[in-house]
Amino acid sequence: MIPLDNDPTKMSTRLQQQIAFVLELDKLKQVFRQSYLLDQMRRENDAEHSWHLAMMALLLAEYAADPVDVCRVVKMVLLHDVVEIEAGDTFLYDADAAKDKAEREQQAADHLFGMLPADQAEDFRAVWDEFESRETAEARFAAALDRLQPLLLHYVTGGKTWQEHGVTRDKVMARNQHIADGSPALWELAEEIIQQAVDEGYLRDPHE
Amino acid sequence: MIPLDNDPTKMSTRLQQQIAFVLELDKLKQVFRQSYLLDQMRRENDAEHSWHLAMMALLLAEYAADPVDVCRVVKMVLLHDVVEIEAGDTFLYDADAAKDKAEREQQAADHLFGMLPADQAEDFRAVWDEFESRETAEARFAAALDRLQPLLLHYVTGGKTWQEHGVTRDKVMARNQHIADGSPALWELAEEIIQQAVDEGYLRDPHE
Repeated sequence: MIPLDNDPTKMSTRLQQQIAFVLELDKLKQVFRQSYLLDQMRRENDAEHSWHLAMMALLLAEYAADPVDVCRVVKMVLLHDVVEIEAGDTFLYDADAAKDKAEREQQAADHLFGMLPADQAEDFRAVWDEFESRETAEARFAAALDRLQPLLLHYVTGGKTWQEHGVTRDKVMARNQHIADGSPALWELAEEIIQQAVDEGYLRDPHE
Repeated sequence: MIPLDNDPTKMSTRLQQQIAFVLELDKLKQVFRQSYLLDQMRRENDAEHSWHLAMMALLLAEYAADPVDVCRVVKMVLLHDVVEIEAGDTFLYDADAAKDKAEREQQAADHLFGMLPADQAEDFRAVWDEFESRETAEARFAAALDRLQPLLLHYVTGGKTWQEHGVTRDKVMARNQHIADGSPALWELAEEIIQQAVDEGYLRDPHE
């Protein structure tokens, strides 16, 4: 699948590694999530989701809890799901799959980022680790976008994904409340969306 | 389709406009290109393509002809195809469709970027205009990536797209040679790919 590696004299090993990784990335377009596109005809894949988050980072950075380096947020969301090429997508509300998610994703990160020249492997791994740790302002804001985007899609598609998985209001609140750490303003929006989803019958509230 | 605009007291007009644009962006996931994914099962869409280019910008910036602001290149490739939500994708080798491409895309840019608050509309439009004009180092490098990415996909999928449209070597050379303006090193790679495509029978050379 990798072109040109039959003639290493013509292309540096460094560029070969980079192009091999670029081609590997194509597989993220085939990793499907639980979210539906707004026209509800099919589910969204990770490449589309990552692009959508990057656009949201450019558009919504002013709402970050703390000042952020937008460029780093964009880089973080662009590569945050690359590990799912090997680890697969884990649905936010799937408690069983969550158990070994970290281990599966660490192994995938070792292997996938390890395809790159050492300096870039280290750089990408550091950005991904930062995203996962949610300790910097950039990582908290990136995580907020990563929650808000599916919430928007689920709401506008009439709660189809929530209903398919029997997800209720309390679970949505619990699994999304860390949006507030990255952006109080976007958490306020998320809370309104969740309330409207309940009011409109898209999302069940077991306590009502 | 736009949530929450029935209660404007709860969300600022600015955030409403931004969220409406974020939801509009979902449509780019339904604009299909001529390129096939590497598994050849379906064509690629513009959201996937834009994400792939952004990753290539992060990975391959060292090969730019002149030093580039990588962050600006990433922003440029992320939004360069948004106009195709309304203008549609124009195949690189379709001379008829190329005739009114600029006009269709200018109208789409006016309308789509015009959905945003004025400061962001102006910023996005400036970045898109810069990409289209190909006058800065960033725009030339972004344009090089925008050509190299489909070339890689066409080559690795055995020239399927070229054959479907009867595209020959001279056309591929002519329509891609401006890769050299953005990156001599990546143009060298592109030339090798084109030569190998001819050698392997993926691409027809009418002069041979």
